[in-house]
Amino acid sequence: MHPITPAMNSFIVTAIGIIHSPYLSREDAPRQGRFSDALVTLEILPEFSEGLQDVEQEPYLIVLYWLDRSDRTTLKAIPPHTGIEHGVFATRSPDRPNPIGICIVELIRREGNLLFVRGLDALDGTPLLDIKPYSADLDSVKQ
Amino acid sequence: MHPITPAMNSFIVTAIGIIHSPYLSREDAPRQGRFSDALVTLEILPEFSEGLQDVEQEPYLIVLYWLDRSDRTTLKAIPPHTGIEHGVFATRSPDRPNPIGICIVELIRREGNLLFVRGLDALDGTPLLDIKPYSADLDSVKQ
Repeated sequence: MHPITPAMNSFIVTAIGIIHSPYLSREDAPRQGRFSDALVTLEILPEFSEGLQDVEQEPYLIVLYWLDRSDRTTLKAIPPHTGIEHGVFATRSPDRPNPIGICIVELIRREGNLLFVRGLDALDGTPLLDIKPYSADLDSVKQ
Repeated sequence: MHPITPAMNSFIVTAIGIIHSPYLSREDAPRQGRFSDALVTLEILPEFSEGLQDVEQEPYLIVLYWLDRSDRTTLKAIPPHTGIEHGVFATRSPDRPNPIGICIVELIRREGNLLFVRGLDALDGTPLLDIKPYSADLDSVKQ
């Protein structure tokens, strides 16, 4: 098996933009983006704007963002809808070792470096990490 | 609007484990995990094993991993199935500013710190960043 060496254990992610949303704290935010009707704005930094070419052709996007107000030290979480403790990797808790949030959003429109989307639960000021086109074939399970 | 300050622009992610797969190079790997039948092993580091509690109850997992053999400097990509250049954020190219891969996998079984999964296209030795339970309600689009 491929060994794990300390040198390859840590990596730096850089914000490609910022999320502007009406949610100022975790208490304000819906439990999941799907429960949000709010129009949320993704502002992409000018140095990454070339990467947006043709993104307006995608009806749905996968958005990855950095949950910067999370507790990275905990390995257990209690989901609010069950009240039962699980390991964080069996939950969607924002408190996890690498607090990367993921949401599938509907792209409403693009205006230059601004993407207006629906279905995102991120807090205002959340750093944006990546945007990928959503593909029903790749990203959902046929059940 | 919430200002972007340099201090909040970069973050460190740490491998929670490593992916063992039959794919040794990008030429070996299927274009997407969904096209892979191989049994792939996620080895979680001992210090994160508590976070796995109850994960074996989840039939499908979202796996996030660090595409450590990617080019982070490019903002354009040409998807192989179209041959037309787009901005990276309109493609699923592994070459992107924050090369975080995402795959929905089927959990076949758990043996301690090892998760055996199907549907993952990651290269052997890829650092694992996060595991989340897949939810059809949250993570797919009703069309």
